Amino acid sequence: MRKQILLVGFDGLGDRPSAELSGRTPLEAANKPSIDWLASIGAQGVIDPISPGIIPGSDTAHLALFGLDPFKVYPGRGPFEAIGAGAELEPGDVAFRGNFATVDEKLVVIDRRAGRSEYGLDKLVEVLNKEIGEIDGFKVEYYKAAEHRLAVVIRGVGLSDKVSDTDPGVEGEKIRPSLPLDNDASSKRTAELINRLTERINKVLRDHEVNRERIEMGLKPANIVLLRGAGKMPRLRKIYELERVHIEKAGAVSATALIKGVTKLLGFHVIRPPGATGGLDTDVNAKVRAAVEMLDKEYDLVYLHLKGTDTASHDRKPKDKKAFIEKCDAALSEIFRDFLDRVVIAITGDHTTSSLIGQHTSDPVPLLIYSKEIFQDMLDRFSERTARLGSIGRIRGSDLIYLLADLAGRQEKFGA
Amino acid sequence: MRKQILLVGFDGLGDRPSAELSGRTPLEAANKPSIDWLASIGAQGVIDPISPGIIPGSDTAHLALFGLDPFKVYPGRGPFEAIGAGAELEPGDVAFRGNFATVDEKLVVIDRRAGRSEYGLDKLVEVLNKEIGEIDGFKVEYYKAAEHRLAVVIRGVGLSDKVSDTDPGVEGEKIRPSLPLDNDASSKRTAELINRLTERINKVLRDHEVNRERIEMGLKPANIVLLRGAGKMPRLRKIYELERVHIEKAGAVSATALIKGVTKLLGFHVIRPPGATGGLDTDVNAKVRAAVEMLDKEYDLVYLHLKGTDTASHDRKPKDKKAFIEKCDAALSEIFRDFLDRVVIAITGDHTTSSLIGQHTSDPVPLLIYSKEIFQDMLDRFSERTARLGSIGRIRGSDLIYLLADLAGRQEKFGA
Repeated sequence: MRKQILLVGFDGLGDRPSAELSGRTPLEAANKPSIDWLASIGAQGVIDPISPGIIPGSDTAHLALFGLDPFKVYPGRGPFEAIGAGAELEPGDVAFRGNFATVDEKLVVIDRRAGRSEYGLDKLVEVLNKEIGEIDGFKVEYYKAAEHRLAVVIRGVGLSDKVSDTDPGVEGEKIRPSLPLDNDASSKRTAELINRLTERINKVLRDHEVNRERIEMGLKPANIVLLRGAGKMPRLRKIYELERVHIEKAGAVSATALIKGVTKLLGFHVIRPPGATGGLDTDVNAKVRAAVEMLDKEYDLVYLHLKGTDTASHDRKPKDKKAFIEKCDAALSEIFRDFLDRVVIAITGDHTTSSLIGQHTSDPVPLLIYSKEIFQDMLDRFSERTARLGSIGRIRGSDLIYLLADLAGRQEKFGA
Repeated sequence: MRKQILLVGFDGLGDRPSAELSGRTPLEAANKPSIDWLASIGAQGVIDPISPGIIPGSDTAHLALFGLDPFKVYPGRGPFEAIGAGAELEPGDVAFRGNFATVDEKLVVIDRRAGRSEYGLDKLVEVLNKEIGEIDGFKVEYYKAAEHRLAVVIRGVGLSDKVSDTDPGVEGEKIRPSLPLDNDASSKRTAELINRLTERINKVLRDHEVNRERIEMGLKPANIVLLRGAGKMPRLRKIYELERVHIEKAGAVSATALIKGVTKLLGFHVIRPPGATGGLDTDVNAKVRAAVEMLDKEYDLVYLHLKGTDTASHDRKPKDKKAFIEKCDAALSEIFRDFLDRVVIAITGDHTTSSLIGQHTSDPVPLLIYSKEIFQDMLDRFSERTARLGSIGRIRGSDLIYLLADLAGRQEKFGA
């Protein structure tokens, strides 16, 4: 009998012991009876999201968790930062990471970050979308990102990402013309288009009232957009196209733009339930309910993404991380109670985020799998330390979906 | 001093705990003093035959165990199913999986499996070999497989496997013409040849007395062969060509057509001693004697394949699997006694076959290695559970032959 698969992804789950938690990690310190009970009848291991020693981003890690090799398919940060900023990319789209910056009348860069002031930048993004939503027949979209950053997406047939940056990388130099990086006609066309776009952006921004206000306030004007990291969104293998695996209908529950975008690209039906914020204050119950509904609707694979663990880690707050895990444990108990017979459950994270240094690290991520038939470990807790003792051993992110598909009776053998 | 290598491959060795064996696996429950004694002076680990989570076939697993990457070299099931049915393939041969099926006079498929009756099919295979052993100068061979299945091999220069199936996959549709899947002239030629072959097969079978008898008996006539899964046998790297490894003379003892074929393709001298059946009733002593003879004849590597563990697992009989392991343990004691000084001994399997579900799974396979110089684990039993604790850890199938070659003093370092 085929089973369904529920993958619970605590973003940045793994951690290191901290003094604040008396030498324990947040996962160790958390009072999480439901997850620990699942551990007592499941099997543990650790995951290297990409490969040992490689620090994953959330995007590359999620690609790996769903069976792709990010070293082969990742198109650079441009497209995925655009997705994180809210863009919905299609294969062929070329995306850039951008900065609002300050140039003088000769286009010499005075400040690569427009003084780091966000004042009015939301408005300017709106203006750009309205005034320069198209160039030479190509659609152009602008998405505000954190601080002075934005993402710029160009859409149309015959674009290339083999073009150089307009961002000189240093101040006191003129913005660079984008140049084609190979001999393809599409690269020449794209570079020329970028240069015309940059000129038009400067023309629209330099006299805009937002910038007059900024100058009056003593801020530097945001009168140019510096572009870098061109990347072309490839067509990614969908989750339902996994070789020898029968996952036809997959759903994801997430409130994080980047994860929603990545799972959508991979063919998941994506839901963000009301109350889900992607932060520590998220309505975990609403997210769990959404996952339960997908299980009830016979989704083959449901991915439940919980972001709070990562947020707390980046803020260097191990106690908040612990509390978030406890909140999720309570919400998850319902699933663990009602679905044990027909669902293979995996709990892990996309990467480790150390709440000591506030950054992603390459530490492997704890993994707990429950399936009725699994070889039980007899470990009665789930933590970084117990996971290292588990029978699953150390596997890679890209192995996980196959392992789960096997346990769920959804994989055909390779060969005869 | 260089040593010889003996690799004992229990087909489908790994398993999961079963109620029938009081919560133990067959390997755990088996009374196997010789193997357990070897464990007390050896080292253990677990093998992912291909990679974690991937369910191996016996063919892909054996390719990996002898150092090949099946993801790179595996040509699809056609050629290996043909080998399993008894064909001896050469590089360049194109093989298909086939079904005897029933079509009406307009070649619409009435039953894709000719009613699943095997009556007379042996005879029809014989007839096809006699009547259509050649087409357009290409040799054609037919091999009976299980039930309504057969393998069809086409031999000659300039064939292609980039051709579509004639099997429509459903009933009520006409058989499909095989079409070339690329622009190569050889694909066009092969597709045309397949279509002429299909016509001739129908002509030979439709009025054959076997089919008249089948109809009289109320069975559906087996009046066509549906072909699918074309694959061209590649030239596989021989075991004696392993980079930096000195294994010149390799032998295999097996009674299973697929394993005999695969090891032969890889350059092994293959022996099937009298009394070896490939089943639970096989004469294990005869197989062990054949392996001992090869060791006496200074073979560098001897592979002893024991199929009964897999057979019992597919039949969901954990107790039979346990009993077969016990029978082999007794037979193997002689080798373990006499060859410890000059032979590196490894005991493992090509994959796990769960005797609960009767199928291959991706669970890693226990591995035990003895060599006079090995770092001993001090574990006094060999089982799925002890193997997970062993010092070898978790390795891949394709690592094993290198590990053994190193222990045997048969590997040169990679680099200076």
